[in-house]
Amino acid sequence: MPILCKPAVDVPENIVTLDDTLRLASRLHADHPRLDLALRLIRNTGVLKRHTILPLEETLRHPGFEQRNLAYEHHAKLRVPAVVERALKNAELDVSEIDVIIYVSCTGFMMPSLTAWMINSMGFRQDTRQIPIAQLGCAAGGAAINRAHDFCTAHAGANALIVSCEFCSMCYQPTDDDIGTLLSNGLFGDAVSAAVVRGQGGTGMRLERNGSYLIPDTEDWISYAVKETGFHFQLDKRVPGTMEPLAPVLRKLVGEHGWDASGLDFYVIHAGGPRILDDLCRFLDVEPQAFQHSRATLTEYGNIASSVVLEALRRQFEAGGLRSADTGIIAGFGPGITAEMSVGSWVVDPKNEVAGDRDRSGPVPVSWSSAVSSTRTKERA
Amino acid sequence: MPILCKPAVDVPENIVTLDDTLRLASRLHADHPRLDLALRLIRNTGVLKRHTILPLEETLRHPGFEQRNLAYEHHAKLRVPAVVERALKNAELDVSEIDVIIYVSCTGFMMPSLTAWMINSMGFRQDTRQIPIAQLGCAAGGAAINRAHDFCTAHAGANALIVSCEFCSMCYQPTDDDIGTLLSNGLFGDAVSAAVVRGQGGTGMRLERNGSYLIPDTEDWISYAVKETGFHFQLDKRVPGTMEPLAPVLRKLVGEHGWDASGLDFYVIHAGGPRILDDLCRFLDVEPQAFQHSRATLTEYGNIASSVVLEALRRQFEAGGLRSADTGIIAGFGPGITAEMSVGSWVVDPKNEVAGDRDRSGPVPVSWSSAVSSTRTKERA
Repeated sequence: MPILCKPAVDVPENIVTLDDTLRLASRLHADHPRLDLALRLIRNTGVLKRHTILPLEETLRHPGFEQRNLAYEHHAKLRVPAVVERALKNAELDVSEIDVIIYVSCTGFMMPSLTAWMINSMGFRQDTRQIPIAQLGCAAGGAAINRAHDFCTAHAGANALIVSCEFCSMCYQPTDDDIGTLLSNGLFGDAVSAAVVRGQGGTGMRLERNGSYLIPDTEDWISYAVKETGFHFQLDKRVPGTMEPLAPVLRKLVGEHGWDASGLDFYVIHAGGPRILDDLCRFLDVEPQAFQHSRATLTEYGNIASSVVLEALRRQFEAGGLRSADTGIIAGFGPGITAEMSVGSWVVDPKNEVAGDRDRSGPVPVSWSSAVSSTRTKERA
Repeated sequence: MPILCKPAVDVPENIVTLDDTLRLASRLHADHPRLDLALRLIRNTGVLKRHTILPLEETLRHPGFEQRNLAYEHHAKLRVPAVVERALKNAELDVSEIDVIIYVSCTGFMMPSLTAWMINSMGFRQDTRQIPIAQLGCAAGGAAINRAHDFCTAHAGANALIVSCEFCSMCYQPTDDDIGTLLSNGLFGDAVSAAVVRGQGGTGMRLERNGSYLIPDTEDWISYAVKETGFHFQLDKRVPGTMEPLAPVLRKLVGEHGWDASGLDFYVIHAGGPRILDDLCRFLDVEPQAFQHSRATLTEYGNIASSVVLEALRRQFEAGGLRSADTGIIAGFGPGITAEMSVGSWVVDPKNEVAGDRDRSGPVPVSWSSAVSSTRTKERA
């Protein structure tokens, strides 16, 4: 089964602190009848800083949709290659060994997608497949992982490169001042992330089962209004409450894999906002500590859209502590309202394994027991 | 191996004839220094009529990017469901049996994608996966078929629905008057198409091998300039010459499958324009008749972007005449310049098979001989 290797992440050099955001909201919307509510919501995000591709004052000016897109393209070409190179290095693969690039980004639009430029300028093979996805928003990180799983499963031995390029600041719309927008203006950040899914070999998360779920009749809850001024992000106040219907969906998928969603060893959850994380903790009956990496991503970088799950997973790798066959889930949430989920277990480089394989207390589901056994044997070799 | 079933296609009720187009170009660009060249290029497209979602005079007015997108959304919701229902019927599947919707469209932008609305309003399961692709342009029809193959291969027994919704008239830009644009204004048409790829059972084209190829350093040859007024299609005059580098790529892929690209039984080729078809015929050394369905699509509907390959394949089904194990290729071309190719063989409902299995004259490649044998056995049962 394919293995998701350690992601690489880069955030731009311009920093917007929580204080900057609060001061700015107070200045720009001094006469807003619900300014106090907006400031309270921004404080409650727990986002202490974000990073942006442009300095703050420049971000605030809207030079038009065309210029915004050109800035997106310029900074994507500037910032993506180094992150991709680190992701390849993490996976111990050369650029020529990649068979598909899955490029997810909802904050700029190019046709052809950046994948064409990457193939031309970074040494990818001309027959590298391109899967650009723009319309799954924050759920696209999870979707990219799942489509990488599918591709590597369908093409034996193939390797997939996932790239998430999210410059949310390029969707800042100065004329929008509804509460959802004011909150969003204090929530989202910019980041580029990448990760390789290896069809053979590698260490990280073995992708064993994936699934998707759309909450009925919530199409309008997270959406873009597409206008002459570009993409206008629209956030419904009911979004923070979506973990109540989604927690059972996660529980069911994990259950189908023979595991208990309350007893997994790692959780990589989309940090859409603090209540998303708090509620899901509660509904899955796990300790807040279980979502620590998602919380850290939110606090330090803000909601970086489809990059969140890769960034939180990177922190999980950095933190260490997982042992072979430890169980986990990745869950991205986004417009639809759609959840994109991936369930799997940890595969450790035998050289780095200190405590040996962990004894799994739960039953090993029949469908993957042979794969786990063979991997364990290999890891012990 | 997954089977691509008979597509369903719908073109809108408004018709623009070649004469309409020529009269219009002469009227709107009377002072254009290269009008004669533009008119000659338009005549040479061989497009006798196109269909558009709005009447001609309304299409010519540009009401702004926001209104264009709203019109796109309105007509997508109006026109997609009936086509999808026919595609499901062709595949003898119920809506609840679909596991993934691959929605390709480069002529409007929605987030969430139409997939969310389809799941909510057409009876698809809530756990139906969504793969919306906007940035592969005309190559996206081929890409959708290939990703459907991958999904159905990775998830045993799963079924994929492909939907292509292309309202090219919504990208008409009255202020652009370079030769590439004037030609495009006479080339593109609107259409909705859909097809099911069945993981088990079904009749049609068995998807046996797929591939993609990007011609080096041609990113700018087919592209969108993204502006306040929406997507501006940019066509380089070198595009019609791209079959020379692509023909060997098709030949190689077919060769890897143990077949000869000059001797296939059916060809479903993107009808980007007449020279694309003429050149590829020549470089593959096949009779013009071999591309008759692509030519008919171009003549009657114009270049309908990612829908071309599904529409030409529909004509192949309608025409009949293929026998079990007949060999073929589908090839879509689009921005990148990217080719998305799929190689496979025909699977006929044994009830409808008159002449019995065809004796293949060429060698059966080792890698799929067992699959073909078992299918033949089944078909004879």
